Amino acid sequence: MRYAVLGTGMVGAALATKLVQLGHEVTMGAREAGNTKAVAWVSTAGRGAAEGSFADAARFGEVVVNATAGAHALQALRAAGADNLGGKILVDVSNAIEPDSGFPPRLSVCNGDSLGEQIQREFGEARVVKALNTVNCDVMVDPGLVPGVHNVYLCGNDDAAKGVVVDMLRAFGWQAGAIIDLGDITAARGMEMYLVLWVTLMRTLGTAHFNHEVHRGV
Amino acid sequence: MRYAVLGTGMVGAALATKLVQLGHEVTMGAREAGNTKAVAWVSTAGRGAAEGSFADAARFGEVVVNATAGAHALQALRAAGADNLGGKILVDVSNAIEPDSGFPPRLSVCNGDSLGEQIQREFGEARVVKALNTVNCDVMVDPGLVPGVHNVYLCGNDDAAKGVVVDMLRAFGWQAGAIIDLGDITAARGMEMYLVLWVTLMRTLGTAHFNHEVHRGV
Repeated sequence: MRYAVLGTGMVGAALATKLVQLGHEVTMGAREAGNTKAVAWVSTAGRGAAEGSFADAARFGEVVVNATAGAHALQALRAAGADNLGGKILVDVSNAIEPDSGFPPRLSVCNGDSLGEQIQREFGEARVVKALNTVNCDVMVDPGLVPGVHNVYLCGNDDAAKGVVVDMLRAFGWQAGAIIDLGDITAARGMEMYLVLWVTLMRTLGTAHFNHEVHRGV
Repeated sequence: MRYAVLGTGMVGAALATKLVQLGHEVTMGAREAGNTKAVAWVSTAGRGAAEGSFADAARFGEVVVNATAGAHALQALRAAGADNLGGKILVDVSNAIEPDSGFPPRLSVCNGDSLGEQIQREFGEARVVKALNTVNCDVMVDPGLVPGVHNVYLCGNDDAAKGVVVDMLRAFGWQAGAIIDLGDITAARGMEMYLVLWVTLMRTLGTAHFNHEVHRGV
């Protein structure tokens, strides 16, 4: 499949690398084509890797992954262009962390709204699926880094789009029973607000390689 | 030990009942002494149970548990009186859910602040410990309702106070290894913002009797 991965940071690189390893064609998108980090990634990622502007990448991808810093996500998606996103599956893995907001960080949107919903509202023709933002990027693409069964969430308004994202998660190594569909895109509120507990746990545990398993009683 | 439980709702009743069962003396506090629900609770809870105003209860307790609705917690604690809370361990188990704010509900404080911190700031002489707000009240006092090992959090600025709360959690049935100290009271931000994911999971799972287990990688 043809993927666009928007964002050249740790999250974008982890996802783009894994997708290439799985045999997909991946264009990493940045503010401008020729981005230093994107070019470096292409040179090491191997066959199927390319880079370009946000618009180049979005035009190329059948599935577009938003792995930009959440505070700049809407700006990046505007640069990608609504025309290039229309009808596409748009996987939003970002967290809307307000830059330089201390510890724990503040979110630039929360409590009655979410970045996932903002993206879906502004890009009404895109099929937005929020996923993976509740784990570190190493764990996203290699859940075996954390022992035992542990869960990953997704939500969105388009069931077929969620099905494609479930297939992607399965290919990343997530067991079918570990993937929890939380419903429509408003569930992004809970997935995003969890970030503050996540960073607090990271500090307490001394590692970003952790996750949680939901246990259900009766 | 002498406990005050502020709040006559499901959470207050669950905690007060368990504390009486464990052999403690418990005064349930309400806006006014003679509250119908508090009187009914006393009549069934057995030896050691009493009721009164928020101030009556707080004056009586060596440990004060805030189990009021979070949106009214500060008002309830003002009625309890700073003099009656000074030097006491104040266990805040509440969630600052904004009434009638839809699904998922909004929080009346979050993102850079928390109810736990607001309480500690306003009642500077109280030894505030945030705990138990991440699970349903049945699970708070009977963690065995959820199978397997699963975690409960606490935080606060006073280590000795947290030690007393850990003992209380152990008496409720929480295993020592399941209790995670997240640090000072600012960790209440993450514990409280998790509420939105919690209610979303409750809807998906179809029960409030669930919790999560943290798995740590390397």
